[in-house]
Amino acid sequence: MSSRLFTFAGGESGVWRIARTEAIVGKPIPQAARLDIVPGPVPRSHKAKWLLRGITSNERYVVRSESEQLLAKQPSLGRPEATCAALIPVRKNSSWWNLPQDERRQIFEEQSKHVHLGLQYLPAIARRLHHCRDLSENEPFDFLTWFEYAPSNETAFNELVAELRASPEWKYVDREVDIRLIREPA
Amino acid sequence: MSSRLFTFAGGESGVWRIARTEAIVGKPIPQAARLDIVPGPVPRSHKAKWLLRGITSNERYVVRSESEQLLAKQPSLGRPEATCAALIPVRKNSSWWNLPQDERRQIFEEQSKHVHLGLQYLPAIARRLHHCRDLSENEPFDFLTWFEYAPSNETAFNELVAELRASPEWKYVDREVDIRLIREPA
Repeated sequence: MSSRLFTFAGGESGVWRIARTEAIVGKPIPQAARLDIVPGPVPRSHKAKWLLRGITSNERYVVRSESEQLLAKQPSLGRPEATCAALIPVRKNSSWWNLPQDERRQIFEEQSKHVHLGLQYLPAIARRLHHCRDLSENEPFDFLTWFEYAPSNETAFNELVAELRASPEWKYVDREVDIRLIREPA
Repeated sequence: MSSRLFTFAGGESGVWRIARTEAIVGKPIPQAARLDIVPGPVPRSHKAKWLLRGITSNERYVVRSESEQLLAKQPSLGRPEATCAALIPVRKNSSWWNLPQDERRQIFEEQSKHVHLGLQYLPAIARRLHHCRDLSENEPFDFLTWFEYAPSNETAFNELVAELRASPEWKYVDREVDIRLIREPA
């Protein structure tokens, strides 16, 4: 069975060089030079400036038609040309989590067009979503999203992120960090 | 902040005496004499025959109207007269988890009337749902549901459980254990 749990370790090692770490809203995270992505848990002895964990899981909002469009268009991680990446940890506030399922879906898609927007940028941008909120009681973020794209698609990626940040869904985001990376084995 | 994570420890201690442990489908769990419910994680040194962990989380299927009815009718845990309890760990198969959100909701409520059935038994039966699936990669169950009721409502509780087990939703259940308990401080 392939791993569902991933640990993102910011420190001195890893094939991804951290080019920029920006706190978009809320508390920043420490600066680090490189990112190591470890399938599974990481031993406590791991030398890192920060460790963020997340687990891939079932879909929470997409309906059948959206799921099929995503499956048909989305590329896999690890494409040779995708030498740019972004790790975007996000936390939503309790107003979001206290909403019933139908109202979260309404904000996510009917108001914010989260899937519809994302589909416009496929197959350029590969993505893996990791959930953190229910790993323990006190995770620093609710989600970690990992994106990979070619340098020629960086402008498109910035557009996508800007559109999402301007959406009604993002009114519920109370912490977000934007980490940009370049694949550059040491 | 009150705890979202709970550990259910089957062993020799705890105010709940285990009256019966029955594997409904799939692998059984070891017999134990008593149940201790510990808010938060449990140290590795804890003496138990089995440990099951779960975390309370946001609602996954209920819509606003259902949520409001549940809030209005559901009793809290710990009522003095509620000396009977049940702990029902459940795991669903990958066919369930691979369904998109709208189809899981459809099976959960429109086909199986999960909330509608549960509402018929309020305020007699108190309930707390704990999620396990995303605590780690290899949890033995997806959900732990804890129920409390008075002895006079045991027949009603058995009816509720039988109705749910006969529903289309339960076709996706590949492991279920039914543990019945009586509050009886040692």
